[in-house]
Amino acid sequence: MTARDAEAAFREMWRELAPLGRHPASGGYRRYAWTRADADCRAWFRGQAEARGLVHETDRNGNQWAWLGDPLAGDAVVTGSHLDSVPDGGAFDGPLGVVSAFAALDELRRRGAEFTRPLGIVNFGDEEGARFGLACTGSRLAAGRLTREQAHLLTDAAGVTLPRAMEAAGYDPDAIGPDPGRLGRIGAFVELHVEQGRSLDRTGDPLGIASAIWPHGRWRYDFRGEANHAGTTLLADRRDPMLPYAETVLAARREAELAGALATFGKVAVEPNGVNAVPSLVRGWLDSRAADAATLDALTAAVERAARDHAERAGVALDVVRDSFTPVVEFRHTLRDELARILGDRVPGDGVPGDGVPGDRTGDRRHPVPVPVLATGAGHDAGILSASVPTAMLFVRNPTGVSHSPAEHATEQDCVAGVAALADVLEGLACR
Amino acid sequence: MTARDAEAAFREMWRELAPLGRHPASGGYRRYAWTRADADCRAWFRGQAEARGLVHETDRNGNQWAWLGDPLAGDAVVTGSHLDSVPDGGAFDGPLGVVSAFAALDELRRRGAEFTRPLGIVNFGDEEGARFGLACTGSRLAAGRLTREQAHLLTDAAGVTLPRAMEAAGYDPDAIGPDPGRLGRIGAFVELHVEQGRSLDRTGDPLGIASAIWPHGRWRYDFRGEANHAGTTLLADRRDPMLPYAETVLAARREAELAGALATFGKVAVEPNGVNAVPSLVRGWLDSRAADAATLDALTAAVERAARDHAERAGVALDVVRDSFTPVVEFRHTLRDELARILGDRVPGDGVPGDGVPGDRTGDRRHPVPVPVLATGAGHDAGILSASVPTAMLFVRNPTGVSHSPAEHATEQDCVAGVAALADVLEGLACR
Repeated sequence: MTARDAEAAFREMWRELAPLGRHPASGGYRRYAWTRADADCRAWFRGQAEARGLVHETDRNGNQWAWLGDPLAGDAVVTGSHLDSVPDGGAFDGPLGVVSAFAALDELRRRGAEFTRPLGIVNFGDEEGARFGLACTGSRLAAGRLTREQAHLLTDAAGVTLPRAMEAAGYDPDAIGPDPGRLGRIGAFVELHVEQGRSLDRTGDPLGIASAIWPHGRWRYDFRGEANHAGTTLLADRRDPMLPYAETVLAARREAELAGALATFGKVAVEPNGVNAVPSLVRGWLDSRAADAATLDALTAAVERAARDHAERAGVALDVVRDSFTPVVEFRHTLRDELARILGDRVPGDGVPGDGVPGDRTGDRRHPVPVPVLATGAGHDAGILSASVPTAMLFVRNPTGVSHSPAEHATEQDCVAGVAALADVLEGLACR
Repeated sequence: MTARDAEAAFREMWRELAPLGRHPASGGYRRYAWTRADADCRAWFRGQAEARGLVHETDRNGNQWAWLGDPLAGDAVVTGSHLDSVPDGGAFDGPLGVVSAFAALDELRRRGAEFTRPLGIVNFGDEEGARFGLACTGSRLAAGRLTREQAHLLTDAAGVTLPRAMEAAGYDPDAIGPDPGRLGRIGAFVELHVEQGRSLDRTGDPLGIASAIWPHGRWRYDFRGEANHAGTTLLADRRDPMLPYAETVLAARREAELAGALATFGKVAVEPNGVNAVPSLVRGWLDSRAADAATLDALTAAVERAARDHAERAGVALDVVRDSFTPVVEFRHTLRDELARILGDRVPGDGVPGDGVPGDRTGDRRHPVPVPVLATGAGHDAGILSASVPTAMLFVRNPTGVSHSPAEHATEQDCVAGVAALADVLEGLACR
């Protein structure tokens, strides 16, 4: 495979993915687990694997794998990410890691690299949790962080359960569950992902290495008042849950600013949700994240205190339920340091940003470029796997920081730099 | 018909209506236009008409009529209300006026009253506008306050248009439109309705007469920011529309308090509405009402100013669109005064509250009970018709003031008093 072939294959992968699950009006992606769009993405993945002579398999939890070499030999090097999306998500969150994995393999073949360890490329199922409300379902199941019984209770907004959705897509929901043997045969997992903030843009770096994932959680706030006619009920007679909800939205923002952390109310459900009805229920979801557990605890406690105070003043009942919580993930220093060494040893011209084409080693700038190490607030399959598998992450610069939006973007130059870096990392790990 | 028969018929009507469109979980009613529940209510109405030997017809706009005497003779006296509901509405809002109409006719027949004018009982279609977002669709069409072209553009939350919904229910959507001939043959329309506030409860009166309907309107506030990842986007980098929305909810409440008026955000739609996504759009609907147009104008202008101010600070774009507006309705003094005279002449024992049975004239308390006259913030078909037909309204006490909720209530005693009063009014108007 020539450099030109590799570049053509890289562009062709993006071209093929572009229309799958894209909403014509929003321009964003709606690739939800076990839907038609999901099946289209899976067929694409299988096609890419087969075109490269890789062995394709879907595991019991719906994660897709493409293997070079014998995965049963153990100590495999795995890379990849996910293809599903949030509602109206962008093109890069997930697919960049999968496309870059195939492109990095193309690049290593171009280099004539000889693999001493099995190489796997993975597409984890339902990373975003857009349909059933739980992120990283595929990796959670494999890692034993979600039981079959728990997964069988997941239900989408239309009332369809996860088992029914899997069945409808042709998969066996009774087969799901922990897969320690499979994970035990992975010696290193490297996930490449578009950055979801502007840290790299601020420092002017095209690539970064993840140090940690912030602890984060989701809390459901149920404000229950009394449904009433908006045109006839005196203000003094109302128990309107929209008022303490609004106060809590503002309190969350204030407390997050004070804590140097993040707090967001991005999802709301109102009952009866009528223009002329004082609501009986306003349900808001708080997403909160901070650099450490103590800060996160203090932040979420402060938001809840404010919510309780305002609810009481409005004569409104409040229930707060923690829907999910993910403790801090510190990526293994050994693997992370190895990535830093491999990437830090490179000099411009060694496929390092600025070249435009993967693996173009003809450049003449000869100074090593250190790769910054940064924490992120976003959860990833890499975070789930890190408890049982040596895991690292590579980030590609996001010039606007926009994420989970049709406007999400990364430049072609940075994406190509990501492929080159990933190829170097895989070569360093799997071809020694 | 004996008093006992009339009472039995009254209770039987409530028993038959009770299960129609009732949601088992909420206990509230979901009787939306052109649905199965709506068809069940219409079948019930037709059954009541036929059981009483009345001529039943459905007009071009889906309003149902039951006639005693020849409606084409003109100068008819009409009473009734609507059978549809808001989402999870109560049992009384609407049906009380229809049930009381049939019960009042039973009472007049028991009295042996002789009608000198045609008597009509009406069930207006889609009064609440729960499905297509526009209240009083049936009466608006008849009165020429909504054109066929406008109505054909109405769409429900599932994307079904009004014409398609009508067709599916077996009605001709091309036939809808103004019906001046029909309205011109109505000499007086009296709508009995459960009160939707606590005014009568506060003054200790079981019944009241409407003076006016407050001017009221609905405004759609579209706050447009930028969708983003809630776990990675720094607070400073966000353009989060939830923040100015929350500020506007609180501003609306403050301004309404200052104005002695009403302002409510009871309906919200968020995009993408993901727990881990900063929203791109928060759409909130303001329902606002005041005793006079100047107060309402000042109130809504103040809310919009606050919204624009907060949106600008958050880097969020704001569009405000007036979805609907209904000017003040002053009910005709002539008819209103006639009702006050008829009801004010009555003394306890003349079917006036306390008797328990419609038309029980055996009481011995002999002091006239004045009936209070009050304004309301709620829209009604009576308000729509008042521009072309002499119109009046009777309110029945609501002991909690709760409305548009499964908890809406009126005592049986007060409902019976309402029937007696309505019978007296109809007798006074149609049997002279």
